[in-house]
Amino acid sequence: MELISINDVREAAARVAAVVVRTPVLKGPGRDLLLKPENLQTTGSFKIRGAYNAVDSMPPEQRDRGVITYSSGNHAQALAYAARSHGVHCTVVMPDDAKPVKVAATRALGADVVMVPPADRKAHAERLAAERGFALVPPFDHPLVIAGQGTVGLELVEDVPDVEVVLVPVGGGALAAGVAGAVKALRPSAKVVGVEPELAADAAEGLRAGARAEWPMSRTGRTIADGLRTNLSDLTFAHLKAYLDDIVTVTEDELLDAVRTLATTTHLVVEPSGAAAVAAHLNHADELPAGRTVAVLSGGNVDGSLLARVLAG
Amino acid sequence: MELISINDVREAAARVAAVVVRTPVLKGPGRDLLLKPENLQTTGSFKIRGAYNAVDSMPPEQRDRGVITYSSGNHAQALAYAARSHGVHCTVVMPDDAKPVKVAATRALGADVVMVPPADRKAHAERLAAERGFALVPPFDHPLVIAGQGTVGLELVEDVPDVEVVLVPVGGGALAAGVAGAVKALRPSAKVVGVEPELAADAAEGLRAGARAEWPMSRTGRTIADGLRTNLSDLTFAHLKAYLDDIVTVTEDELLDAVRTLATTTHLVVEPSGAAAVAAHLNHADELPAGRTVAVLSGGNVDGSLLARVLAG
Repeated sequence: MELISINDVREAAARVAAVVVRTPVLKGPGRDLLLKPENLQTTGSFKIRGAYNAVDSMPPEQRDRGVITYSSGNHAQALAYAARSHGVHCTVVMPDDAKPVKVAATRALGADVVMVPPADRKAHAERLAAERGFALVPPFDHPLVIAGQGTVGLELVEDVPDVEVVLVPVGGGALAAGVAGAVKALRPSAKVVGVEPELAADAAEGLRAGARAEWPMSRTGRTIADGLRTNLSDLTFAHLKAYLDDIVTVTEDELLDAVRTLATTTHLVVEPSGAAAVAAHLNHADELPAGRTVAVLSGGNVDGSLLARVLAG
Repeated sequence: MELISINDVREAAARVAAVVVRTPVLKGPGRDLLLKPENLQTTGSFKIRGAYNAVDSMPPEQRDRGVITYSSGNHAQALAYAARSHGVHCTVVMPDDAKPVKVAATRALGADVVMVPPADRKAHAERLAAERGFALVPPFDHPLVIAGQGTVGLELVEDVPDVEVVLVPVGGGALAAGVAGAVKALRPSAKVVGVEPELAADAAEGLRAGARAEWPMSRTGRTIADGLRTNLSDLTFAHLKAYLDDIVTVTEDELLDAVRTLATTTHLVVEPSGAAAVAAHLNHADELPAGRTVAVLSGGNVDGSLLARVLAG
């Protein structure tokens, strides 16, 4: 299986520069920790990098027929934004139990939202794509999406050239795949470690076994880190197998503590998925390589009411 | 009275570069609004810029005797940090009703904290300075402090060269003085507007009357924006009179709404004082000049419990 190259990531960086915030590197809580705060990114997460790269790479005649995806999370808003930036139509297929706030945010970016039973999402999107000629931009299982997410790694090595350890959350795996690929190409001595919730540790299990593991949504759905419930694809698994040095898991309490610590000490609002790398640094130092560490904060789209409960302790 | 020059600000920028985060410019809530998020700054507010500039400018033989200030807020942590960076001793005189969390944060940065009755703060700091040979670095009434805070304005014009309106909170006035001075020097066509709470509108009253107004702490103490309760000094008043185009006031509800909006839509934790400029933009557009606007978020040091209450609505 062909993996993305650093050139793919460099090309993505040139494409996404028009809409992506060059997120700064900030000091984090705990010893020797720096943060790459993608919660400050356009649409509130790193997802705009991959979605925009995919939309911008399409031949115009394909793009002009419109784009489509299936997502109830950050990829939905990212693709809607990328489509609007190109003046093309966007359809998002969401499960009919999606949170109204996510539906509203996606519609506010100009996308058509189609609600279907959760199990039908992907099939429904594929059917609509075939019927209407829409280009399907999947949330993570695509080389252009992985290359786009890899621009996070490119930027962080440029800004912290002596980085020794990179911690990155693992959901569908495109962020971890892109970041690990970019970091290993630019600074082979740096270690890249993935972070998963204990309750959605399918990637950890699969990487240890040497073959992709599938955890059912009924199992991964228990974690509060809703961005990390997804299983890997064959493509993202191949990247992680090639580039990731290790993968560690964090508990639900550690995730919520990290959300609280990031809000009160670094003044960043981060969603539970986005706080996973910091949770690992603060609680699992003994399982991690030592040295100058950058934790990727993947996103900040958390409900105010959840954040209020976390802060109230 | 001599005002600071753009050269003073440029010299300050060179001095503070070692410790100051080059805060990015981010998209804000509402129309045509950009943010300069000093809540992400070292020690959680812009105050490190002025404090570090003052400490770094001292002749070493003076600095080595130690520095002192009176503050229960962000300047205390900023001076402690600046002193520690220079390897010199720092004393902070705080009112004996200061919040334990602020005392602890200042001590954690290596400063000696001396608690006195609130009314004695300034006199006690001046007495200690005279007795022990400490150099007094006041929170705002000093040209080097004003020049340091002006680096916020320098950076924002560099990053947004076509800025048309700058909104900046007014407490003791050094931030507004430095920012307005820098912006007017670099881009004379831009308008700079100060923002105060209605409950601490001493600067608005003084500027309209043409003479500095004093509001007692018993009056300004009612605003939740604890960083904006202070009166101007003659020096900061002279700068604001020379450079500020206007000053607007915001209500307590508008401040808290802005804190909530910044947390949920831009993923930034901002203290009520720090949210004043955004509160003005969201609620008082009719009193403000139109055009490409940058709001300065002055700091993020807010109690988690207050933030939880604000988010819970």
